[in-house]
Amino acid sequence: MTPNRRGRPREQGIDAAVRAAVNELLEEVGYQRCTVDAIAARAGVGKAALYRRWKSKAELVFAAVVHDDAIAAPHDTGTLRGDVASVLADIQSALDGPQVRNALPGLLADLRAEDGPTARLGELFLIRERAYLAEVLDRAIARGELARRPEVPVVHAMLLGSVFAWLHLLREAVPPGGLADALAPGLYGAIIELGR
Amino acid sequence: MTPNRRGRPREQGIDAAVRAAVNELLEEVGYQRCTVDAIAARAGVGKAALYRRWKSKAELVFAAVVHDDAIAAPHDTGTLRGDVASVLADIQSALDGPQVRNALPGLLADLRAEDGPTARLGELFLIRERAYLAEVLDRAIARGELARRPEVPVVHAMLLGSVFAWLHLLREAVPPGGLADALAPGLYGAIIELGR
Repeated sequence: MTPNRRGRPREQGIDAAVRAAVNELLEEVGYQRCTVDAIAARAGVGKAALYRRWKSKAELVFAAVVHDDAIAAPHDTGTLRGDVASVLADIQSALDGPQVRNALPGLLADLRAEDGPTARLGELFLIRERAYLAEVLDRAIARGELARRPEVPVVHAMLLGSVFAWLHLLREAVPPGGLADALAPGLYGAIIELGR
Repeated sequence: MTPNRRGRPREQGIDAAVRAAVNELLEEVGYQRCTVDAIAARAGVGKAALYRRWKSKAELVFAAVVHDDAIAAPHDTGTLRGDVASVLADIQSALDGPQVRNALPGLLADLRAEDGPTARLGELFLIRERAYLAEVLDRAIARGELARRPEVPVVHAMLLGSVFAWLHLLREAVPPGGLADALAPGLYGAIIELGR
């Protein structure tokens, strides 16, 4: 899979059709019965085409409901504090909503059960999430806000985990200004501490 | 349920038998088939006794594999930095291990599906987790390390979420010194920032 291939209009059309099919099926029949066969039929796409792009149902569903393999670091706000708030808003928008809630138990079970897809999920999605975070941290170094780059996996766990816990474990209400209002000040402090 | 009742030797014996039964069943047949009937039979306890103590299967399983309704704040290490490391070690030990991994998708699905048990889980477990965290934060205020108590739900989401993401979402390897080694410095910084 090259960036080139992804850019083709035909691939983009397939991606959109698959995303719509997954979302509809999750709502109508739930994760277990949202099979690759059902997705292919609903999207009007051959299974072979799906498996060329995604290696497992978990990967396919993750790409459709959380984020696909093309994510970009948020617009530079000019400060680390602002960028952390933007990242948290991005994570909230990826994780919030009924489709993620629907898919989550099944996705976690599949992640646990299958080692292959997990490795692939790591390769495909996590590496891009980390590149995105590294870019945000490096901007802060360039601005002189951090003396060094904190460990990206640690920052990743703190930012992703805080939003995930809020929405899916503790199921707190989301403040009117979004989760960034609640979580950015502390997590900004954490990153400053780690980047001294 | 009064603390008194919990303290009775007979109740403690039942709790231990139930915990063992849940752990065995999760390993043998998985969360779906680890029913209240099966737990009662395996533990040699009547279903009525189980329902007097726990209001749902989700609650029962949570108490058996994560933590029950009696949790105590960690030993005072003398510093907030040390206490944060202790809390993270406690959270790691509650969330790590194959039984939590086994139960997690089913627990999340039940939490999502049922509003009653969620409310009860909140009442029973989350309130105790928050009391525990409040105690740790208040110690730091008494020592003069914090000027004010940060919002407990925010601290809760950051500490719980970071460990959860590490173990169950990102599935990072645990460092030899435990997760506290990786996560305590940043999360300590976060709490200091919020408690200024």
